[in-house]
Amino acid sequence: MMDIRANLRARLDAAVGGEHVLTDPAATASYVSDWRGRFHGQALAVVRPASTDQVAAVVRACAELGVPIVPQGGNTGQCGGATPDERGDAIVLSLARMNRVRAVDPANATLTAEAGVPLATVQTAAADAGLMFPLSLAAEGSCTIGGNLSTNAGGHAVLRFGNTRELVLGIEVVLADGRIWDGLRGLRKDNTGYDLKQLFIGAEGTLGIVTATVLRLFPAPRARATALAALSDVAGAVRLLFDLRQAMGDRITGFELMSAQSMALSRKHQPALPDPCPGSPWYALLQIDDNAVDSPVSAQLERALNVALESGIVQDATIAQSGEQARALWSLRENIAEAQRRDGPNIKHDISVPVSVIARFLDAAGPALASAFPGLRFVVFGHLGDGNLHYNLAAPEGVAPTTFLANTARANRIVYDLVAAHGGSISAEHGIGQQKRDELVRYKSAVEIDLMRAVKTALDPSGIFNPGKIFPPGP
Amino acid sequence: MMDIRANLRARLDAAVGGEHVLTDPAATASYVSDWRGRFHGQALAVVRPASTDQVAAVVRACAELGVPIVPQGGNTGQCGGATPDERGDAIVLSLARMNRVRAVDPANATLTAEAGVPLATVQTAAADAGLMFPLSLAAEGSCTIGGNLSTNAGGHAVLRFGNTRELVLGIEVVLADGRIWDGLRGLRKDNTGYDLKQLFIGAEGTLGIVTATVLRLFPAPRARATALAALSDVAGAVRLLFDLRQAMGDRITGFELMSAQSMALSRKHQPALPDPCPGSPWYALLQIDDNAVDSPVSAQLERALNVALESGIVQDATIAQSGEQARALWSLRENIAEAQRRDGPNIKHDISVPVSVIARFLDAAGPALASAFPGLRFVVFGHLGDGNLHYNLAAPEGVAPTTFLANTARANRIVYDLVAAHGGSISAEHGIGQQKRDELVRYKSAVEIDLMRAVKTALDPSGIFNPGKIFPPGP
Repeated sequence: MMDIRANLRARLDAAVGGEHVLTDPAATASYVSDWRGRFHGQALAVVRPASTDQVAAVVRACAELGVPIVPQGGNTGQCGGATPDERGDAIVLSLARMNRVRAVDPANATLTAEAGVPLATVQTAAADAGLMFPLSLAAEGSCTIGGNLSTNAGGHAVLRFGNTRELVLGIEVVLADGRIWDGLRGLRKDNTGYDLKQLFIGAEGTLGIVTATVLRLFPAPRARATALAALSDVAGAVRLLFDLRQAMGDRITGFELMSAQSMALSRKHQPALPDPCPGSPWYALLQIDDNAVDSPVSAQLERALNVALESGIVQDATIAQSGEQARALWSLRENIAEAQRRDGPNIKHDISVPVSVIARFLDAAGPALASAFPGLRFVVFGHLGDGNLHYNLAAPEGVAPTTFLANTARANRIVYDLVAAHGGSISAEHGIGQQKRDELVRYKSAVEIDLMRAVKTALDPSGIFNPGKIFPPGP
Repeated sequence: MMDIRANLRARLDAAVGGEHVLTDPAATASYVSDWRGRFHGQALAVVRPASTDQVAAVVRACAELGVPIVPQGGNTGQCGGATPDERGDAIVLSLARMNRVRAVDPANATLTAEAGVPLATVQTAAADAGLMFPLSLAAEGSCTIGGNLSTNAGGHAVLRFGNTRELVLGIEVVLADGRIWDGLRGLRKDNTGYDLKQLFIGAEGTLGIVTATVLRLFPAPRARATALAALSDVAGAVRLLFDLRQAMGDRITGFELMSAQSMALSRKHQPALPDPCPGSPWYALLQIDDNAVDSPVSAQLERALNVALESGIVQDATIAQSGEQARALWSLRENIAEAQRRDGPNIKHDISVPVSVIARFLDAAGPALASAFPGLRFVVFGHLGDGNLHYNLAAPEGVAPTTFLANTARANRIVYDLVAAHGGSISAEHGIGQQKRDELVRYKSAVEIDLMRAVKTALDPSGIFNPGKIFPPGP
């Protein structure tokens, strides 16, 4: 054992330089637990390569010595996908030093970035070229583009621009045998065999180490309208989405659903927030973006909302008259997660169902949970346009956190069984990691699990990449 | 041999009914050659299942007896991907009888169709629901949606809506062991493990038989502006695309490049076509679509073109004043292929390069080819917004077809070497099939070929699906 470790240390030092092989517990602590402190592990070392060749050298060393590798970007994941397990026989491979924007090509509307570039840096580099990279999420200041690819991150603009998968034209990957696959193509059309990059996007580091990517850029929006619509039910929100899309098409960048309870919770912990259109059970936060500065987006949105008011789909609505008012409306939505954290423990579910069955799902799940857990408080909000709900459950008044959280498995079963019955997904945008790996086996068909295992075995036959993630750990 | 055939015949008859197992040469002729008569093969039988279960039964029978399967949709492919080889030891599996639209879900903006549904039928079913399926290509009346998926078809609206891959939410596939994978999910967000559907899209039937799919629908455009812009060079066309995207974003549905020669050829064989903005070497055909009936797309396009005229990017421009004028402009573009066919033999290339290097590629390829083949005539047009050129070469005046076509391999080498040197693709939208399988090995890295083979072996270990397509045939 000592021999292997000494040998490994020498190989890693040679690959990346001794100062970038961290073993001191004080130096490695922030890498072996997740940012929320829910997953904890150990590692032989934290290795910080600065180039693709260095990553390849690390992988070759680990492959030869049988040492598992846990790749890590900004360590902002939700499901423990970047945290090593307790065995302590793996290394953490941090991509943080691979942080160069390699190229921006405005005429091709592409940007080439290394895996460790923070998402916010990608956004800024695109803006500096007069363009926009549309991926946007709460952790954008610290998450990395490599992590975004590996988890196929979603975020606020999926309705219009798609998930991360749709934003990627090319990738560079270090494979399980240490070879480098240069798939850094910047092409909109390329039908030359299997689209291999799709395998590595969303694979959570279990098939290869993504070291760089070619991303699609878009013209930046210059006109914006933001509104809040009050609704009597979720079916009305689905109808409003349909009608708005007919009237405004792809200009709808945001269509966020919020229950009155979730908005009230947001205001409870930030009383300065506005209270527009009070008295309805559901609200939709709408954002329309267009390119030309003088595009009549506000007038178009106002007209569409008037039609919805007259037909009774919408009960009330307010259109932001300034950037400040628009930001206040968005704060109502964005403050919900923080308000939940302050308010006490939650059992959270990041789920999706077809947009057309959202109302039916809620009608089934609400009573089932209320009956199982009397006094339960619901905090329901999410990206309605994507069918993606953050379906969160807060403790009844006066119930202690530990008592409430002991119900997690039972609550999950009720929610996930109903999600499955409605053709949905138990992880819409956060991935599987270690948190949901046992649920995955329960809710996927045997055929699909077999296909996934066949792909894993084909690309990582000895299983050195991120063991125990997505799939349950081996013996 | 006779035993296996008799056994196979019995199994196939039991699976699909004897009347749907065709062996009479008169009945099978149209299935064993491609529609253009360039690829010819033989088959033990043509089998026409009517359901997914029947497809599974056929695959199980063939797997047990070691009989290869060539899946076929509308038989409209460009590269011989659906044509069996000369050995005659395979069956052709036609999906034509699986032609049901299973469901349309307007609120979820999805449509579920079986593989054999013609693309035009999908378009019509979407329109009947007040929505639109944007995939559109010349063969849409006879090609099938299963074939579109298997070749990741491109077409006229990729700039705005992406290739077929971006339009698919779910698929159903019969695997090499005859099991059915039901991946018919209608979700915008689903991060539960590997995105397996991506493997089968664009795989040209070499990994499984796609039997059904869930497709994304979009609001139908109701306002349209069409224009032709005359340009002094291709760099100006790229600049115009950038500026138009900044001004109008995703509303640009079409941005087609045409050389003056290709337009002249179009008019030569259809003299009634208009001759707008004569005297320039290059032209761009522009189409802007928007949702609201009263969207000011014509005014916005006129303003953008005026800016381009003033800055000298555009030499001249005309905006269609009626649907009839718009159709006439599009006829100039759409008639090029037919005009080429009438004019004599062509050596055709369906290639892509990054949009930013299109001009550089043309500057390199033109002189190299003109020097190799004195008097060569160029017919260059394509989807500029996708970097996709139909880079076609016509015989010099007076050179006999067979003499000219004998140069094909040499011309391909010049073109493809320059495509590769410019970071491009030797097959932008038509796939590999049998036509380009040897080129693929030449232009892909060994690492990428190994990855592709690993995937093929993992999903189709005994190689029964479409042998000799994408990869060179085995011994």
